[in-house]
Amino acid sequence: MEVIERPDEMQRRALQWWREGKVIGFVPTMGYFHEGHLALMRRARQECDVVVVSIYVNPLQFGPREDFQRYPRDLPRDLRMAESVGVDVAFVPKDEDMYPEGFQTFVEVTELTRGLEGFYRPGHFRGVTTVVAKLFNIVLPHKAYFGEKDFQQLRVVQRMVRDLNMPVEIVPCPTVREEDGLAMSSRNTYLNAEERKAASALFRALQRADQLFREGERRVAKLKAAIWDALSDEPLVHPQYVEIVDAETLQPIFVIEHPAVILLAAFVGTARLIDEWLLIP
Amino acid sequence: MEVIERPDEMQRRALQWWREGKVIGFVPTMGYFHEGHLALMRRARQECDVVVVSIYVNPLQFGPREDFQRYPRDLPRDLRMAESVGVDVAFVPKDEDMYPEGFQTFVEVTELTRGLEGFYRPGHFRGVTTVVAKLFNIVLPHKAYFGEKDFQQLRVVQRMVRDLNMPVEIVPCPTVREEDGLAMSSRNTYLNAEERKAASALFRALQRADQLFREGERRVAKLKAAIWDALSDEPLVHPQYVEIVDAETLQPIFVIEHPAVILLAAFVGTARLIDEWLLIP
Repeated sequence: MEVIERPDEMQRRALQWWREGKVIGFVPTMGYFHEGHLALMRRARQECDVVVVSIYVNPLQFGPREDFQRYPRDLPRDLRMAESVGVDVAFVPKDEDMYPEGFQTFVEVTELTRGLEGFYRPGHFRGVTTVVAKLFNIVLPHKAYFGEKDFQQLRVVQRMVRDLNMPVEIVPCPTVREEDGLAMSSRNTYLNAEERKAASALFRALQRADQLFREGERRVAKLKAAIWDALSDEPLVHPQYVEIVDAETLQPIFVIEHPAVILLAAFVGTARLIDEWLLIP
Repeated sequence: MEVIERPDEMQRRALQWWREGKVIGFVPTMGYFHEGHLALMRRARQECDVVVVSIYVNPLQFGPREDFQRYPRDLPRDLRMAESVGVDVAFVPKDEDMYPEGFQTFVEVTELTRGLEGFYRPGHFRGVTTVVAKLFNIVLPHKAYFGEKDFQQLRVVQRMVRDLNMPVEIVPCPTVREEDGLAMSSRNTYLNAEERKAASALFRALQRADQLFREGERRVAKLKAAIWDALSDEPLVHPQYVEIVDAETLQPIFVIEHPAVILLAAFVGTARLIDEWLLIP
């Protein structure tokens, strides 16, 4: 596996692959890999001729009081893991090459980013869409793989790709979970043992709603009440929002008649965790 | 010459050219061609394997009180002219395909767009960068040709391309002028005979400044005074701004020590005209 640091070199390589007719698969990440990342890379490996993973903790998508500084990083381990699943190139750019002096261009999705994560993390999605647009132009992928765990991010990126006619296929991949159901996340490393145990309440709350849904409950108010109820049993979990919205538009709904998604965010200790669960009637 | 209306069909064609190793030249326009447009197309014809011209009056770059509705249009004439200079494909998209329901993604250059045209036409450059980003993703050009007449637009597009790592080379082309020096513009059609005659005052004012500059004058205040003075001789010309700025950064300067550019806008009758003139010490 090759490691490329410079955007212009990465783009030259990508253009070469295009000339050779290679199908490029791309997994954009912030590193500190877990099985969720590896699942994206394995899928890309199956479907594409060459696989690029980017490892870049993008400062633009962190708020001023967020965890940019302490976000976990372990590049040597990441590179070993990426190589172990057959990644061809790890693209590991530097801040000064991604955002050189004078940088001033931003990509913004305006509606889908207003609520949910966008409400609690102002500017976050502008940072995400800007860096993803840059990465797509550098890596020139035919297919790009995104986890459903960051569900709103997935919808925002899909919207950007469609609105700006980007010639790339977004491939959503299911959330990968720990044994007790906790969604895998690099931020789980912030949890101490007690918090780690408490964090599984998020999954249990989603499961409780799923059970009610399967038993026929279609009223969002009832399902949300059950989730809040389940979460309130766990004193270490401090939910920020629990919403059930249309799975395509992320618009509020009252009764589930089309595919819907539960989206929630909660602080557990200093870790801000998010999760998602699809409800398909 | 082929005419393509649908963005997805245009993109399929562009991807086919990429597979064939063809170099794609692109001239984005709002149509109603004049010699300035043709100069861009001829240059693209010389330098590229295939040449695409887009003809699209982009509603997103017009303000609510601007001339979107009455902007001149003559597609049959444009197609004949494009064919006459060897264009391969005219891309002529429809509003509902460029901005379908739910469209909500914008590309914005923040600093370079604050002053000059950006001050008098709020939102204009956001419309320009958004549509150019879309067109680049649809046509996938290796080289794109822009006139220096819209000088700030050129710098804004160059900045966007650089900041977002777009794999395209921007080729600036000199302003083409009428016999009396008036910069060619589709908007010149708004001028009646008397206004048309008066409009040449813009060029004469630029020439006056250029003469002083060549005689050694480097003080921006003196040069601007000479331009305002020359413009004020012509009662039908109502200047909106006259600025002399760094030709790269478009930042204000007081004394010309590096390449600078005179940028001005003026109403002549109902036509809002702009012009530019480089001053290279």
